[in-house]
Amino acid sequence: MASKKTRTGTTGRRARGEATARKIEDMVDLIASAAAKRKNPRFDIPSRTLSNVRFDPRKAIIEMGGDKQARLFFDKGMARKFMQTVLIASACKQLIDADKTASIRQLYYLSKHNIDGTREKTFNDQDESDPIIEDLEVMIDSLREELHVFASNRGNLVGPIVLEDDGQVLDCMKMGSAGYAVPSICEPDIIKFRKCSAKYILHVEKDTVWRRFYEDRYHEKHHCIVTHGSGQPTRGMRRLLRRMHEELKLPVYCLLDNDPWGYYIYSVIKQGSINLAYESRRMAVPAALFIGVSSYDYERCGLSDDVKIMLDDKDIKRAKQILAYPWFKHKKHWEKEIRKMMQNGFKMEVEALINKRLTFLTDEYVPMKIKDRKQWLD
Amino acid sequence: MASKKTRTGTTGRRARGEATARKIEDMVDLIASAAAKRKNPRFDIPSRTLSNVRFDPRKAIIEMGGDKQARLFFDKGMARKFMQTVLIASACKQLIDADKTASIRQLYYLSKHNIDGTREKTFNDQDESDPIIEDLEVMIDSLREELHVFASNRGNLVGPIVLEDDGQVLDCMKMGSAGYAVPSICEPDIIKFRKCSAKYILHVEKDTVWRRFYEDRYHEKHHCIVTHGSGQPTRGMRRLLRRMHEELKLPVYCLLDNDPWGYYIYSVIKQGSINLAYESRRMAVPAALFIGVSSYDYERCGLSDDVKIMLDDKDIKRAKQILAYPWFKHKKHWEKEIRKMMQNGFKMEVEALINKRLTFLTDEYVPMKIKDRKQWLD
Repeated sequence: MASKKTRTGTTGRRARGEATARKIEDMVDLIASAAAKRKNPRFDIPSRTLSNVRFDPRKAIIEMGGDKQARLFFDKGMARKFMQTVLIASACKQLIDADKTASIRQLYYLSKHNIDGTREKTFNDQDESDPIIEDLEVMIDSLREELHVFASNRGNLVGPIVLEDDGQVLDCMKMGSAGYAVPSICEPDIIKFRKCSAKYILHVEKDTVWRRFYEDRYHEKHHCIVTHGSGQPTRGMRRLLRRMHEELKLPVYCLLDNDPWGYYIYSVIKQGSINLAYESRRMAVPAALFIGVSSYDYERCGLSDDVKIMLDDKDIKRAKQILAYPWFKHKKHWEKEIRKMMQNGFKMEVEALINKRLTFLTDEYVPMKIKDRKQWLD
Repeated sequence: MASKKTRTGTTGRRARGEATARKIEDMVDLIASAAAKRKNPRFDIPSRTLSNVRFDPRKAIIEMGGDKQARLFFDKGMARKFMQTVLIASACKQLIDADKTASIRQLYYLSKHNIDGTREKTFNDQDESDPIIEDLEVMIDSLREELHVFASNRGNLVGPIVLEDDGQVLDCMKMGSAGYAVPSICEPDIIKFRKCSAKYILHVEKDTVWRRFYEDRYHEKHHCIVTHGSGQPTRGMRRLLRRMHEELKLPVYCLLDNDPWGYYIYSVIKQGSINLAYESRRMAVPAALFIGVSSYDYERCGLSDDVKIMLDDKDIKRAKQILAYPWFKHKKHWEKEIRKMMQNGFKMEVEALINKRLTFLTDEYVPMKIKDRKQWLD
């Protein structure tokens, strides 16, 4: 159906696909051989429970422990999920074979049908299929993207890097006034780095902040890459940050709001998320640095009370939770930072700093922050 | 502060800026001359109330009526808003003079300060400044973008069009696997159309659907532009659709979910929104066509009940509201369409159609819809 592909990405994608397809085959071979031996077919699935999530202080990322759960075919309580696991594995295998990708929603609709001879559906809604995709990921140790499943694309980038995306060579200094749109799948066979002269990556939270930096030509003056994730960065953005950091040796500086949500975004970029702990290994950037907005900046930068947004009960509760995360808890400077916010009694948005001057963020605040490593929060 | 600009967009932007700046000057000149004549300075602001919004059946867009409200300086109830109006006008003038832009949030922070000699703030929160921006827009008849205020950028595009964005020439067939990122400001001095061989525009609701079309190379096979707005299209996307439709004479086909929200998105693209009625003239696409998903497609396409999502009370209430909109009410085919959805008792997502086959949407459904004008909903 697809036109003949001549784009250079195809060969690499095929190779990745074949490796993942083999893993799926190995997985279902186990069922067949169990059946042949008249044993109860089973999968052993690493547990994605909170109790099986650990923070590895040496690697500085959130990782899964070794706990596994059995999923048996001959078991009234597990048979449905067993069937669903095989269906999702089969749908992913078909996507890989056809060199196609699908969203988790599309995968749900592809796999939903009546079970033969009954009026029962294989999946009643997407809440049933999403966890099965995650099961499959951990079971065969493949990222969702390797299973040809995509998430939403959100987030943009500008800066002195030339990359290849889907066979097209793109100069990210010349992608228009919204920058290069970061796609959902940023695996090495789709996105290749061709040339990069950037000194570092500045990651900001929102597109409106990003536009401030774009318009003020920060990326030109400071020879760096500026990215945003429209809030919590998507999987594609996180994977790209990780790859640029690792393969191009670029430091990653994060400029986020001075509130619990900003701290949380930083922690997801740095250590990974609790829900998707098994992906940290390939998506986290343990060396990422938080450069602001810090609770101390109110005094440090002589800000006026125009920037204050009073903390509410929810903020304080969330701040205490974050303080208790093992990856913040044992760091004195983070404890001080979060406690200072609670003492202040207010939070501050990145955009609030332009209360001083429209270009204060780009021509004074961030350059000062990047220069003074004493102000970095690691 | 900004580096010397050599990008070609600058001259056009300057000219647009000067025209808008002159309008602001004229507006404040009225205050000065009223004061000189010892009269009470006033603005007359077109009313942005629902009662002043009319549907013009000839132009087929939502427009504002002629009602105006006075805003007086010497009036206890209006003095604060009067002061705020002047402050926002002044901030926009400064942005224009500096050839800079700001988000509505940034404009709020730029304009917030203590009133001299008091502890009172010019603006307490953004809920106070946003309506003032809209007042200013209608008062001097300038789009927000002409006042150098930007919204969020969201939405992407792929297809055979070469455009210039901020002085950079971009071939939208070669912008990577997430397509060209549509910026917030799409005015003619920023975005210029250089070359276009597309036959039409297909606008889809979600980025995941867009990716289906991108991956299946729909834009290549059918020689068209495919856009998405990540849900309700942003101002930038609407302005770009309007301009491509008008300047390049491209028909706009909309592929949206078969639910009240999908109908509403269509109506915003086509007639404009009630809240921002005064902008329809420059953002609406009155000739836009709804090609699906139609309530009749369930039977027409032989879909299985896997695609059904049962309507809830909120859906039905919303459907009745939409049915009562003047721009739907007098159209028999729209009445039939919406009533049929209520009879069905279920809604359908665009992505649900791939339940038939992954590429059903791109190689059968949409080509069939575009070919058969009897299936278009105008």
